[in-house]
Amino acid sequence: MSTEWKELVGNLVEDGDNATSDLETVIALKQQDTEEVALLLESLPIEQRLATWRSLDSEERFAVLLQMRADPRERILDDFSKEELDDLLTGLDASELLELADSLSPRLIERALNRMDEQQQQWYLSAQQYNEAQGGHWARHDTLALPQNARVRDALRLLRRRHPEHRDTIFLTDRVGKLAGCVLLSELWAQPEHISLAELVEDSVPVLQAQDAALESALKVQTAKIASLPMVDAQDKLIGCLDITTACELVNEFHEAKLMASAGMDENEDLFGPVRKSAQGRAVWLGINLLTAFAASWFIGLFEATLQQVVALAVLMPVVASMGGISGSQTLTLMIRGLALRQVSSANRNVLLKKELSVGLLNGVIWATVVGIVASLWFSDNAIGLVIGVAILLNIVAAALSGVIIPVVLDKLRIDPALSGSVILTTVTDIVGFVAFLGLGTLFLV
Amino acid sequence: MSTEWKELVGNLVEDGDNATSDLETVIALKQQDTEEVALLLESLPIEQRLATWRSLDSEERFAVLLQMRADPRERILDDFSKEELDDLLTGLDASELLELADSLSPRLIERALNRMDEQQQQWYLSAQQYNEAQGGHWARHDTLALPQNARVRDALRLLRRRHPEHRDTIFLTDRVGKLAGCVLLSELWAQPEHISLAELVEDSVPVLQAQDAALESALKVQTAKIASLPMVDAQDKLIGCLDITTACELVNEFHEAKLMASAGMDENEDLFGPVRKSAQGRAVWLGINLLTAFAASWFIGLFEATLQQVVALAVLMPVVASMGGISGSQTLTLMIRGLALRQVSSANRNVLLKKELSVGLLNGVIWATVVGIVASLWFSDNAIGLVIGVAILLNIVAAALSGVIIPVVLDKLRIDPALSGSVILTTVTDIVGFVAFLGLGTLFLV
Repeated sequence: MSTEWKELVGNLVEDGDNATSDLETVIALKQQDTEEVALLLESLPIEQRLATWRSLDSEERFAVLLQMRADPRERILDDFSKEELDDLLTGLDASELLELADSLSPRLIERALNRMDEQQQQWYLSAQQYNEAQGGHWARHDTLALPQNARVRDALRLLRRRHPEHRDTIFLTDRVGKLAGCVLLSELWAQPEHISLAELVEDSVPVLQAQDAALESALKVQTAKIASLPMVDAQDKLIGCLDITTACELVNEFHEAKLMASAGMDENEDLFGPVRKSAQGRAVWLGINLLTAFAASWFIGLFEATLQQVVALAVLMPVVASMGGISGSQTLTLMIRGLALRQVSSANRNVLLKKELSVGLLNGVIWATVVGIVASLWFSDNAIGLVIGVAILLNIVAAALSGVIIPVVLDKLRIDPALSGSVILTTVTDIVGFVAFLGLGTLFLV
Repeated sequence: MSTEWKELVGNLVEDGDNATSDLETVIALKQQDTEEVALLLESLPIEQRLATWRSLDSEERFAVLLQMRADPRERILDDFSKEELDDLLTGLDASELLELADSLSPRLIERALNRMDEQQQQWYLSAQQYNEAQGGHWARHDTLALPQNARVRDALRLLRRRHPEHRDTIFLTDRVGKLAGCVLLSELWAQPEHISLAELVEDSVPVLQAQDAALESALKVQTAKIASLPMVDAQDKLIGCLDITTACELVNEFHEAKLMASAGMDENEDLFGPVRKSAQGRAVWLGINLLTAFAASWFIGLFEATLQQVVALAVLMPVVASMGGISGSQTLTLMIRGLALRQVSSANRNVLLKKELSVGLLNGVIWATVVGIVASLWFSDNAIGLVIGVAILLNIVAAALSGVIIPVVLDKLRIDPALSGSVILTTVTDIVGFVAFLGLGTLFLV
C-alpha cells in the first residue's frame, strides 16, 4: 500500500500536466477511496493538483473536494469555471454545504441553498444555529425515528425502505418531537412483529445536548457501544444524531489542530500553498516570539558589565535557559494532556503542583550537580560551577511552577494552552534563567 | 457535566480515605461509564485513588482497571491482595488479558491463561503472534461468521442468538476458513429467508491484513462506512475483525503518544505517579538536551575573545537562536503532520523543500530587516544591525532546510520525528545561529 502510494505520487509529480492522459494513474486513483484521493491531492504541488483533479471522474470529484482541508481545497475552487461551480452548487445537500461553507462566499452559499429542497434547507439552517465548537453544528439529520407507540413491524417497514450508514438505533419521539427512548436494531431480530418498541427501549444510551462542546460529544460517541448517539436541543427535542464517522473526524481534527497550534500554525495550512500565504500565516507567530526574545535580551542587557568581565557566563547562558525550558515543557505537556482529558481541575491542582515541584526539585538537584561539575572543570573555576548549579536548580523549580500555573490560567481565560503555553513558558524560563545566572554571577564572580 | 465532574474530584480529594463511606460519591461514580471512572481514578492522588477504587462495585472494578493507562493502573495493582489478584485473573477473557498483559508478570499471565477456556486461550496466543504495532494484535475474534453457502435464514438464526457490539457485517468463509465475502446486516431486513448470502455480498468492504500497521488499519476502520472491518492473515484466512471502538482507542493513543513524546515523556506517565519514577522518566530527555546545550556552548566558547570586546553580541545572541528555532519548528511540524498522513514522500520532497526554502527566505528577509533596525537603534550601531540581520536570514533559511531534511531522515531510520526531531532541529538552529552571528561579529565588529 505505502509503496504503491509513493509510486502514484511520484508519477503524478513527474508527469505534471499530462496526468489527464495517464491511464494507469487514473485507474489507480479509482481504487482509492475518496478520503485517500483527497489526501493525495493535498500532497501534490498546485499545478499537478489541478491536473490530477481534472482527471477524476465527475461523480467522484465533489466527494473528494468535500474531504479536503480548507486551504488546499481553495486552490482548486479558485480554478473552477462558472459551469463547474454551478454543477457543484446544484448537487449539494445540507451536510455537504456545511463542510464547504468556509470556502464559499455568502453569495454562493445563498445560491446553493436556493437549489436545495425545503427539508435540506431547514437542516442547514438548524445546523447554523450552533457554532462549529458545538455538537449541534455537526448533527446528522437522517436518523431512523418513529413515534413512541410504534411496533416492531413499523420498524421493519422503515428499515426495508432505507438504512443510512452507521444507524444502529431507532429513536422514539413523543407527539411534540421530544426524544422518548432508543431501540437497538440488534434487539429487533428476535422480536415478533406486534411487540411495541417502547418495551424494547435501551436505557443506557447516552443522549447528547446540541449546545454541548462538539469534542466532548464526539468522544462520547467514540466510547459508546453504538454507532450514533441521539442529539436533542434545549427543549429535549430530537434534532438528529452524531455518528461515529463525524465523531472520528472531529476528534482527529482536534488532535491535528493541537499539533499545528503548538507551532503557531493553522491546521488547514496547505503543504503546497502559495509561498506568500504560508509566510504570512507563520509571520504572526514569529513576531510574537521575537517580542519575547527581545524581552529576554533586555534582561541580559542589564548585566552587560558582568558579561564583559566574565565571558564564561555568556558561553554558559544557553545551558541554563535550555534546561529550564525542557523541564518546564515536560510539566506543561502533562498539564495540556490532563486539561484536554478533564483530569486537571481546581480540585487536584494543588496536589499536582506539589508533585511537579518535587519532581523539579529532584531533577533540579541532579542536573545542577552534573552541570556544576562540568562547568567547574571546563573553566577551572569552582565558583562558576556553583553559580550555574544554583541557577539551574532555581530555573528548573521555576519551570515546574510555571508549567502547572500557566496552562491553568490560560485555560481559565479560555485560551488554548497548546497554542500559547510554550511561548509564555520559555519566556519565563529564559528570563528566570538569565537573571538567576547573571545575577548570581554578578554577586559572586565579579 | 464538567462542573459535576469537578465537584466529584473535589469531594474525593478532600475526603481522602473516607471515600468508602461517601455514599453520594459512589452513586455519582455509578452514573459515569467505566471510561469516565478510569479517567477519574487517574485524576486522583494515589491515596484517594486507592480509597475510591475500593469503593467501586466489584463487578465494575475490573472493567475500570482495563480502561486505565498502564502507569496509574500499576499503582492499583501493587495494592492488590492475593485474593483480589486471584479474582481478577479468574474473570479475564483473551482481549482483557491482552490489555492487562503489560502490567502483569509472566507468571500471572500464565495463571490467567490456565483459567481460560480453550478458545479464549487460542485467541490470546493468536494475538501474541503479532506485535502491538500490528493490526493482528488488536483483532476481535467474536465476529459474525458463516460458511459461504449459508442463506438468509442462517444469518437470522445467528443474529437472534448473539450480537456483539459494533458487528454490522456477516463475514462469509470458505471450507478452509478463507474470507469469501461480507454481507451487511442492513441488507438482510428486506430479504426473504431462502436467499443465499453469497448473492448479497458487498464488494466495497476493505479487508485488513493482520501484519499491517495497526494505526493504518485503525484509520481505515474510522473512515469505513461500517463499524468493523474483517481482518485476514497472510494466508487470507479470516482471523477476526478490527472494530471501531478499538480503532478509536488506537488512533487516540497514537495522538496522545505523539504529544507526550514531543516532550520526551511516556504516554502512560501517571499524573500522580511517585516523584522518583516521574523524575527518572524525564531525566533521560533532560540529559540528551543537556548534551546539545553544551554543544552549543562549546561553539559560543570559540568566540570568547569577540564576546569580551562586543558585549552586545552576548545580549542579542538568544534572539538569533530563537528566531531560527521557531521558524524551523513550524516547518518541522508541517512535515510531521505530512509524514503521519503519508503525504510526504521521496516523490514530492524536493518540491516541498523548494517551497519551504522560499517561505524561509521571505520570512527571513522580513524579520532580518525588523531585527536589524531594532538592534541598530538599541546599540546605536548600524554594523551590529547588519550583522544580526544577516545572521537571522541565514539561520531562518538553515531552519527551513533542517525542518524538511531532519524528519525525512529520521523517518527513513524509523525514528519518530515527533520525539527527537525538535531537539535535533534546535541544536542545528542554535549552533548555526550562534556561529553565524558571532562569526560575522568577529569579522565585522572587532
